[in-house]
Amino acid sequence: MEFSSKLLENAVNEMSQLPGIGKRTALRLVLHLLRQPDTQTFQLADALSKVRAEIKFCKSCHNISDKDICEICENPKRQTDIICVVEDIRDVMAIENTSSFKGLYHVLGGKISPMDGIGPQDLTIKALVEKVKKGTVKELIFAMSPTMEGDTTNFYIFKQIQGMDVATSTIARGVAAGNELEYTDEITLGRSIVDRVPFEASLKS
Amino acid sequence: MEFSSKLLENAVNEMSQLPGIGKRTALRLVLHLLRQPDTQTFQLADALSKVRAEIKFCKSCHNISDKDICEICENPKRQTDIICVVEDIRDVMAIENTSSFKGLYHVLGGKISPMDGIGPQDLTIKALVEKVKKGTVKELIFAMSPTMEGDTTNFYIFKQIQGMDVATSTIARGVAAGNELEYTDEITLGRSIVDRVPFEASLKS
Repeated sequence: MEFSSKLLENAVNEMSQLPGIGKRTALRLVLHLLRQPDTQTFQLADALSKVRAEIKFCKSCHNISDKDICEICENPKRQTDIICVVEDIRDVMAIENTSSFKGLYHVLGGKISPMDGIGPQDLTIKALVEKVKKGTVKELIFAMSPTMEGDTTNFYIFKQIQGMDVATSTIARGVAAGNELEYTDEITLGRSIVDRVPFEASLKS
Repeated sequence: MEFSSKLLENAVNEMSQLPGIGKRTALRLVLHLLRQPDTQTFQLADALSKVRAEIKFCKSCHNISDKDICEICENPKRQTDIICVVEDIRDVMAIENTSSFKGLYHVLGGKISPMDGIGPQDLTIKALVEKVKKGTVKELIFAMSPTMEGDTTNFYIFKQIQGMDVATSTIARGVAAGNELEYTDEITLGRSIVDRVPFEASLKS
């Protein structure tokens, strides 16, 4: 792509480093910004620089936070003896949206994935194990995505805390609400039969 | 969407103002930046601010440029008496890529579109008409996209320069290279028969 301006080329190149944004999309976005009042661009640039420079991670759960301890960990109404282990902050947001969990979180910051060069030492697993070692945690809920990497990560943590006095559980896998049975994959469907729940219990939720 | 950090929320909000980028995508992009070395974010922010603050538009053709007159207008090898009228800078880039045009451009900066509140006064049509009035331009090539708005814009300019000593042409419309005849829409196909070219002439290109 030939640009008539170095400034434009530079902006497009930087923009196209973002995942899922190619050169053409980057050019479209930059040209859009050029047509808008300049304050929009400056606010965007400022917000990005600020979040990158000043962002903190909660020292307890590693969730993104403006303070040293995040609002969830700080909240006295939350149960501190049950910890939900998630991959990243988006999962915290998704679970918080359901309003069905009142414990604390532990954000791993990724999942074990040898293909991407991510090992246990790149995640916050050590801090989680230390937390469990203290003995105040009664239950760990593994809430990783049901993929190969998610399962590996769950299993790795499970091995690390073996012998410690903590219960472990994993989020239920089954047919999603609104899905047709005939289009559900066999692993999920099989699992949903093995893990069936008493009908009366299912009426409560 | 509930954020655990105001800084993050702010960055996501600014990012999601870009066209085609919703809140979820914006969050994914910002979280990606947070995982990268901070220089990447700072370079992106800097490049965007710079291009917005310092960008110039060529005083002659209104193409984006780092200088007052762009490289194409400055180039002594280009034919100055033939002007290709395009909607925006991306069209200049697309036509330059074909290497088949050696004249100058005139970038309108949009197309007449009452639906979007864009009238002739929002485009650089007046400057184009002034250019033609000087009498040095022999031919105007209308190279707008073949849409209702593109056609309207072409026709508006055509009316403005009527009576002046300048030839006008429009880019050929027809079946695109590699397209199957049976899937070509009827307007295009009809046009391609009316505007047929001598077979020998078609062998040259």
